Formats: sequence, structure tokens, C-alpha cells
Amino acid sequence: MFDRIAIIGMGLIGSSIARNVREKGLAKTLVAGDLSEDVCHAVVELDLADYVTRDLARAVEGADLVILAVPVGAMAAAMRGIAPGLKDNVIISDTGSVKMAVIEAVRPYLRAGMEFIPAHPIAGTEFSGPESGFAKLFQGRWCILTPMPETEIRAVEKLTQFWEACGSMIEIMEPAHHDLVLGITSHLPHLIAYTIVGTATELEEDTKSEVIKFSASGFRDFTRIAASDPVMWRDVFLNNKVAVLEILQRFTEDLTALQKAIRQGDGDYLYQTFDKTRAIRKAIVDQGQA
Amino acid sequence: MFDRIAIIGMGLIGSSIARNVREKGLAKTLVAGDLSEDVCHAVVELDLADYVTRDLARAVEGADLVILAVPVGAMAAAMRGIAPGLKDNVIISDTGSVKMAVIEAVRPYLRAGMEFIPAHPIAGTEFSGPESGFAKLFQGRWCILTPMPETEIRAVEKLTQFWEACGSMIEIMEPAHHDLVLGITSHLPHLIAYTIVGTATELEEDTKSEVIKFSASGFRDFTRIAASDPVMWRDVFLNNKVAVLEILQRFTEDLTALQKAIRQGDGDYLYQTFDKTRAIRKAIVDQGQA
Repeated sequence: MFDRIAIIGMGLIGSSIARNVREKGLAKTLVAGDLSEDVCHAVVELDLADYVTRDLARAVEGADLVILAVPVGAMAAAMRGIAPGLKDNVIISDTGSVKMAVIEAVRPYLRAGMEFIPAHPIAGTEFSGPESGFAKLFQGRWCILTPMPETEIRAVEKLTQFWEACGSMIEIMEPAHHDLVLGITSHLPHLIAYTIVGTATELEEDTKSEVIKFSASGFRDFTRIAASDPVMWRDVFLNNKVAVLEILQRFTEDLTALQKAIRQGDGDYLYQTFDKTRAIRKAIVDQGQA
Repeated sequence: MFDRIAIIGMGLIGSSIARNVREKGLAKTLVAGDLSEDVCHAVVELDLADYVTRDLARAVEGADLVILAVPVGAMAAAMRGIAPGLKDNVIISDTGSVKMAVIEAVRPYLRAGMEFIPAHPIAGTEFSGPESGFAKLFQGRWCILTPMPETEIRAVEKLTQFWEACGSMIEIMEPAHHDLVLGITSHLPHLIAYTIVGTATELEEDTKSEVIKFSASGFRDFTRIAASDPVMWRDVFLNNKVAVLEILQRFTEDLTALQKAIRQGDGDYLYQTFDKTRAIRKAIVDQGQA
């Protein structure tokens, strides 16, 4: 599909893409670039790429497709690092959970003839690092592309085919709209999960050990979400500030209304609120996303 | 184990207990009582009990063990209903998610010789009704008993054996402490999940359908929790008001601090908060509760 693919950042996502490239033969040559020596050694040991280097400019030399799979906050530095090595007619993409901020970070380094197509594979686990990746991570999952108005259509088609070969379903979206939708479905839930587990970490020791023991009653699901990579999520919240604060505001209003209903013993309000949420679950189950 | 067991309320929990009594031969005779005609018909069709009746006083006649498996808000009415039929040396228990309020509701109807042992099996799914129950629901799950100071020890041992036969692990706890611990591990997570899914239901239609489509990124876990029985959860919040409001207050403070950090771009604070929550997840995994 490509002559030479370079993946920059070989964590959970990058290494899972590499496994797909290898298993499905999506490139003649696969190069992995990562600033971390430990990660590079792990990539060599796991035999995930043909060439492995900490020199990002060398990593992308001659590549037809470059995928930036680093935390959103590291995109600008990664792009600066690879820029000297990029050939003119390269397709550049990324895997960041935020799209507006990544476009802002990458755009200054683009030269004529280069095609930048922001992408966000909606897939992941609470584990990090190249050892945690696996080829089936993207199977049946959405990958959202947010191409720019000036992007060449054939490049978008090529990237679509690449992600479909990895098992993904493709959706095209405006970058700002992506950031709002993901703010609701992903960023806010992670923020809330981090908060509730954080609240529990500050309990006195006795109570905390009981919370762990009896976590099966709802809390457990939150701890899995709140075990996600802290650097990745710090960067998401720093880079999707407007959408997250907007949706957090609505959430806080709704929570305050429920708090008031509990304080006042307003059973009707509680019942109505708890009843209407079932419809969304049903829609998710009906769409086979449960 | 018992001559005659009566289960009042044949929803998810009650019907799962019935399946255990049947499969493991825990009683010579099993009686099911439920006020709903539909539920009684389903119980007959599923053949979950020897006798099925909507007359709660008749249901408990001659029973050695009576288990109230109704929503917390219906405990007082259920106890009033069964009181005329209870024999003197009966063991009464329940399955409510709140213990202080249930003790208050049941106590006025207790006569000398009766033993009341509040219980809370920490098990459940987002589904309701007698069709949703299954015998393995309690397998490897905790069941918390909160006996009163005056409770006869042999009665506690007998109930312990009963729940162990259902597959549960037993923990003895003070009722007020139970309500605090479960307020954190169960009640607050449910309240938050209901809120966040509720916030999503109020989005404009276009965005809402995208939220459903891309729910796999965190939101999906919340929708499962927020699909739980609304009557049960209304009653939990009406009956564990003090503990829930206290823990909600702490949660709101922590969320406000994170909100401020996002607004101010304080990456260090975000990283530290997101990093410390991993320890609790590790403890849960280490204890085999993940």
C-alpha cells in the first residue's frame, strides 16, 4: 500500500499500528522513531519495525506516510523534529485525541506538496507502552479523519484504505466538531473518573481499603478509566480547554440539580432523570457498540 | 438448610436468590411473593418457586427465612405486608443497597424471637425483572451483613452459610459504615453516571447521535451504569442522603480544582492528579476484583 511508513511514537497506539503494518503487509519498509531509548529497545526486542531510531528526522527520510502517535502536547516538538527529514510529497497524519490543537501545532511546518490529514482512531486501553499494543486494537472501531479544505482527495482515500486495512470504520468530520463530540464522549468521562478515584485516594486508610475491596459496585469501572496514561490526558485537557470547560459547565449544572433533589427528597425528579438515560444505552446496544 | 424460605420481591436479585435455592436445594419449600401480577406470572412460567402469591402475609406463613428483595423505599410497606403472616422464630433479612434506612423501616414490625439481619449482596447488572436473574450472580461477590447488637449469633451464622452457598464471600460491618463505604463505591458513581448521560440526552439531535456512535471512548461505560433500575436508585438516594451529600461535596471540590487547573493551563496539577489514581486501580487488580 505504501513503500515506506514511519511511525513516530511507539506507545500503545503507535505499536498497534506497527503490528498491523507488519501483519497485513501495508508497507515495504516500516521505520519506528521514538525519543525514548527504553521504548526503542523494546521495539527492537518485539521486532515491530525494520528500522528503529531516536533521530526523528532520519526516521521519516523517504517515507510516503508518516504517522505521529505521540501525546497531543508533544505534537509540535515531534513535527519540528521530523521536518528536516520529510520528503516533499509525503502524507502526514496523527492519532491525537484532540484535532484543533494538533492542526495548529503541525501546520507551521508543512511545505508545498505535503498532505496533512489529522486522524483519531477511537480505540485504546488503560495500558501504555509498546508491549501493550496489539493488532486487533482498531478492529470494528471508528477512526475519525478531519482533513483540511485544501487536502488532496486521493490522499484522504489512501489514508482511509490504510485505516480500513487496520480494521477501522472511517468517519469524516470537521475538526472543531470532533473536539466537541469527543469532549462529551471521552474527555469529560475521563475527567470525572479521574476526579472520583482521586476523591477516594484522599479517604482515611481504613475506608480506602474497603473502597478497594467493595469496588465491584460501580467504582471499579471508574478506576479502569482513571488508570489511563496521565501524560496523554494532561495534554488532552490542556489542548481541548474550550470544549471541555463548556461541557463541564453543563454537567455541573445537571449535577447540582440532582444534588438539590436529593437534599429536598424530590423522588419524582430523581426518577425522571434516572429513567430517561436508559434510551441512550438502548441506542448504543442497538448500534452494536455496547 | 431451611425448611421454608420466602422471597418477597422477585426482580433481578430476588429471582437470582430463588435460582440458587432451587439449584442448590437450600430449602424444602420456596415461596415467592410479589405485588405485581406480571412478575408473579413470569415467576410461574420460569418455575422459580413452589408457591407464588401476591398476598405477602400468606407468602411468609411458616417460613424460617424471609428475604425482602424490594427497592429500599418499599421495605416499610413490604414489612407491614408480611408482618401478620410471620411466625415467631423467623430469620428476616433483606438485600437493600442502604442499611440504616432499612433498619429504621423494618424495626417497628419486629416481635420478640424474630431475628432481623440486614444484608447487602454487592452484585447486580443493569437489567431488571425475574427474567434477568441468574444463579451465578453472587459467585465470588461480597455480601455485607450488618447484624444488630442484639442479634442471635447462630442466626448470623445460618445466614452466612446461606449466602456462602449462593457463592458469596461474607463481610460483617456496622450499618452506618456500610452506608458511607457504599456511598463512595456505588451510590456516587451511579449518580455521576446518571448525570453525565443525562447531560448528553439534552444535546441537540445531531450531536446526540454522534455521541451514541462514538460512545466507545469512555462514555459507553457510563451508559451501562446509567441504565440501572430507576426506582431502585431513586430510593437509594432518598435513603442515604447524608452520606451521599457528604461524599458529593468532596467530589465537587475536587472537580472544581481540576476545572480551575484546566482553565489556568496548570499541567503539573493535572499530571499529578491523573498519576496518583493509578495506585487504586493496581490495588483492585491485585485483589482480583478487576
